[in-house]
Amino acid sequence: MICPDRPGLVSQLSGWIADHNGNIVHADHHTDQDAGVFLSRIEWELDQFLLSRESVISAVNDLAEYLEGKAQLNFSDELPNVALFVSKQDHCLLDILLRVKSGELRMNVPLVISNHNFLENICIDFGVNFKYIPVDSSDKSFAEQQIYNLLIEYDIELAVLAKYMQILSKTFLSKFPMVMNIHHSFLPAFKGAHPYHQAWERGVKLIGATAHYVTEDLDAGPIIEQTISNISHRDEVSDLIRKGRDTERIALARALRLHLHRQVMVYQGRTAVFA
Amino acid sequence: MICPDRPGLVSQLSGWIADHNGNIVHADHHTDQDAGVFLSRIEWELDQFLLSRESVISAVNDLAEYLEGKAQLNFSDELPNVALFVSKQDHCLLDILLRVKSGELRMNVPLVISNHNFLENICIDFGVNFKYIPVDSSDKSFAEQQIYNLLIEYDIELAVLAKYMQILSKTFLSKFPMVMNIHHSFLPAFKGAHPYHQAWERGVKLIGATAHYVTEDLDAGPIIEQTISNISHRDEVSDLIRKGRDTERIALARALRLHLHRQVMVYQGRTAVFA
Amino acid sequence: MICPDRPGLVSQLSGWIADHNGNIVHADHHTDQDAGVFLSRIEWELDQFLLSRESVISAVNDLAEYLEGKAQLNFSDELPNVALFVSKQDHCLLDILLRVKSGELRMNVPLVISNHNFLENICIDFGVNFKYIPVDSSDKSFAEQQIYNLLIEYDIELAVLAKYMQILSKTFLSKFPMVMNIHHSFLPAFKGAHPYHQAWERGVKLIGATAHYVTEDLDAGPIIEQTISNISHRDEVSDLIRKGRDTERIALARALRLHLHRQVMVYQGRTAVFA
Amino acid sequence: MICPDRPGLVSQLSGWIADHNGNIVHADHHTDQDAGVFLSRIEWELDQFLLSRESVISAVNDLAEYLEGKAQLNFSDELPNVALFVSKQDHCLLDILLRVKSGELRMNVPLVISNHNFLENICIDFGVNFKYIPVDSSDKSFAEQQIYNLLIEYDIELAVLAKYMQILSKTFLSKFPMVMNIHHSFLPAFKGAHPYHQAWERGVKLIGATAHYVTEDLDAGPIIEQTISNISHRDEVSDLIRKGRDTERIALARALRLHLHRQVMVYQGRTAVFA
Repeated sequence: MICPDRPGLVSQLSGWIADHNGNIVHADHHTDQDAGVFLSRIEWELDQFLLSRESVISAVNDLAEYLEGKAQLNFSDELPNVALFVSKQDHCLLDILLRVKSGELRMNVPLVISNHNFLENICIDFGVNFKYIPVDSSDKSFAEQQIYNLLIEYDIELAVLAKYMQILSKTFLSKFPMVMNIHHSFLPAFKGAHPYHQAWERGVKLIGATAHYVTEDLDAGPIIEQTISNISHRDEVSDLIRKGRDTERIALARALRLHLHRQVMVYQGRTAVFA
Repeated sequence: MICPDRPGLVSQLSGWIADHNGNIVHADHHTDQDAGVFLSRIEWELDQFLLSRESVISAVNDLAEYLEGKAQLNFSDELPNVALFVSKQDHCLLDILLRVKSGELRMNVPLVISNHNFLENICIDFGVNFKYIPVDSSDKSFAEQQIYNLLIEYDIELAVLAKYMQILSKTFLSKFPMVMNIHHSFLPAFKGAHPYHQAWERGVKLIGATAHYVTEDLDAGPIIEQTISNISHRDEVSDLIRKGRDTERIALARALRLHLHRQVMVYQGRTAVFA
Repeated sequence: MICPDRPGLVSQLSGWIADHNGNIVHADHHTDQDAGVFLSRIEWELDQFLLSRESVISAVNDLAEYLEGKAQLNFSDELPNVALFVSKQDHCLLDILLRVKSGELRMNVPLVISNHNFLENICIDFGVNFKYIPVDSSDKSFAEQQIYNLLIEYDIELAVLAKYMQILSKTFLSKFPMVMNIHHSFLPAFKGAHPYHQAWERGVKLIGATAHYVTEDLDAGPIIEQTISNISHRDEVSDLIRKGRDTERIALARALRLHLHRQVMVYQGRTAVFA
Repeated sequence: MICPDRPGLVSQLSGWIADHNGNIVHADHHTDQDAGVFLSRIEWELDQFLLSRESVISAVNDLAEYLEGKAQLNFSDELPNVALFVSKQDHCLLDILLRVKSGELRMNVPLVISNHNFLENICIDFGVNFKYIPVDSSDKSFAEQQIYNLLIEYDIELAVLAKYMQILSKTFLSKFPMVMNIHHSFLPAFKGAHPYHQAWERGVKLIGATAHYVTEDLDAGPIIEQTISNISHRDEVSDLIRKGRDTERIALARALRLHLHRQVMVYQGRTAVFA
């Protein structure tokens, strides 16, 4: 729940749940006093809950409307469909698929989309549909329309750019805004292309990776997670790339898990992460 | 508030505050399901609150009794009195006094106690009473009685062992249990004396510091904060000691700030840290 | 080269290489003054080198004998054979095999040994021989003899216990001492079984993983790499296990890479890591 | 020693020292193959050395000239004079003065320069000359001339900008180039003014501090050390500033120690840090 701040909100929300016989197992709230915004994330058990699954959704939306805010309700036993976007590098793809397989990331991956056909075999091994959608750099609209259709067809909630080396257009994002990306630098340092080369040139002593939601303005979306690794003058660009693969994997896996547990709330271009 | 877990507690607590016109500015809860324990930390504003400072204390205690738990109420504008215990090393003493002076640690330091007279001048510089209480290793009871009397005289809430190289007896702790210590290892590794020498002998690749509450069983008290620093084979014991001073300072300062903001709750020998 | 310290050693070693037309690309030395031990790791190019591969080995050994020390010579284009030992958990096995495949770990893995048959399919996928050697807990000698024979048969240089839940006997280690292990705690804390349960019980604020060479005295071998992860009171044992998988993977992969690049030197129960 | 790379350099340098009866206690070399540059840092004992202090300096310079490079020779028992520049904030000043007093930073501080008179008392306490040099923002040349004269008068080797909120001109730096600065962000992110406000706006999940040598192009000088601290959505700008003080202190103290031990070598706008 995100709504304008006012006294009594914690009480109203928790009271509403208690009144319907719900047992809160986790609750976390945050007030951004400058922005006058209240954010609340509440997990409760449905065992004795007086409302059915169907009616709880509309009831929560009514409550949000009453509080002039927005609410999102998720059932923890319903796994969302997530599509992975890749290009040629396989380390994030493999990492995510293995974490899904082990139960660490609770989601379905019905679809992998790529602008190259390099990683098809990995998808076959994991029993995931692989769709090769080449992108014409002079006109991306054809490829993006195909992609959009697939996302709708497979009922995808979230697209994860797991080292997808294409920029999604403003038009696409306006139609499908739920996109997460991993950028291989501690943003806002080294935006754009070749951040490891930039980092080596600049002679920094640490490199990083940033998992963020995608917005039109590239590399400027709300940051979910940042991870860093120390480097020294002995590290060449190839060492930065190698060390970076670990920070990328870890940052993306953490961000994705936080998203799946509905621990990330976005407001005013920033995130609150209820970890 | 710490009490047995049951449905509706978040609602009851926040409802009680809302009913008395309190505005919650921060709330955090935790349920330890194995232990069946519910912990809640709520910060609210007293501006429009319907109860006076005097009556809110007893009201909160009544609430705790009703919930078969224990509550602690603190007013954020009342600074607690904290005594610092030192021996010969000055780095933690100086660090704390400087952080108090800068307003980073909101507390009064009316009293420094030491079993040596080395650090008196620092205390004079900061305008703090310095009490030299030598400890007879064959019979600590005399020294501990003097210490206890001073803590009572100065109305001390918390004693911080800021590199105090004496062990407080079980008898003393039963009379004055609110004691925080900084141990120079990542506990439970390297308990006891000379942890940096032990660490060097063992050839570890990282050293640490642990801030914890003191219990009879030395180095076994509830851990509040742990900080580490990387080391290499090039580091001698003297380098470990030097690097360790920074981890000690940081771990103790963080733990102390968490304590002062009432963000640490102890239960079953462990802490919940609502940071 | 490890030898007793004396003046002129850096000059002697580098002079010997220069005299034979070798170009040093990397050199690192360390003197442990307490122990009176000098350690040196030198990488040089063989392009113009005056000695053949065959004769350089004996020449280096002669030099070591002259300096009353021990030398190890490796050719960076010769990949060592490494055997992986596993039980039921797959995360370290997969991580290593993927890093080998990507070229990040320069070694051959001709052999995986397990006391369970759970992970055979993974090995088949990667084209690695999987040998199921059940261990009779009342008499390990039969299993260990089979293991030893396999290590000899496959010309194994290093055995990596990648979550192998069996303890190798003193007898075995005396015959095959080059064994690396990953222990899931920041040693020497939480030795022995179930370190994550121990860590949760103790209420620590960080968990770790330690990659070390194996010695008779379990969990007391020379430490190569330690990695940690922060935890909070919200983390259950299952969260520690999950977070720990990442620290285990990273610590073991780093240690293994250091070993393969011959950057780890063991002396007096400790390691010098020339990173 | 920094010079063009060629075969035999390690041997030449260490041979020269051995020939003069010097015992190397530490040696570290690095070759930047892209740049074709060789860097070497050698520490040796003078006890039995055949050259006097006077003649060793010119001998080393001759050697550097012969190798077409540059050398710097320092005697570890000669403490350099370092001037500290401050404005209103005291945390870095106090931190450095305390570390000097404790022997952790081996240097003399004969001079503190400030564009405000706030911190004079601290300097009096530590027995350090405090010079108040106000800066006219429309014409800095008068102030900078005074500063330059003081640096010469006090025989200063290094100026440390310990939260000095003035930008030194190109003209000044061309006359006195040995200047170290602490910038309160992980550069190159958040260059310029108010990096903590920028960081809060951007919603990053970690903040940092960067110690670097100063060049004309502000915040673009060679980086010596970077330190980071995790933050969350609960942290306001004031919390970033508070947490940042610790990262600033630590990064600057580490960089200064590395400089004093002559472990930092600058080449091509980058540093090699022989730690």
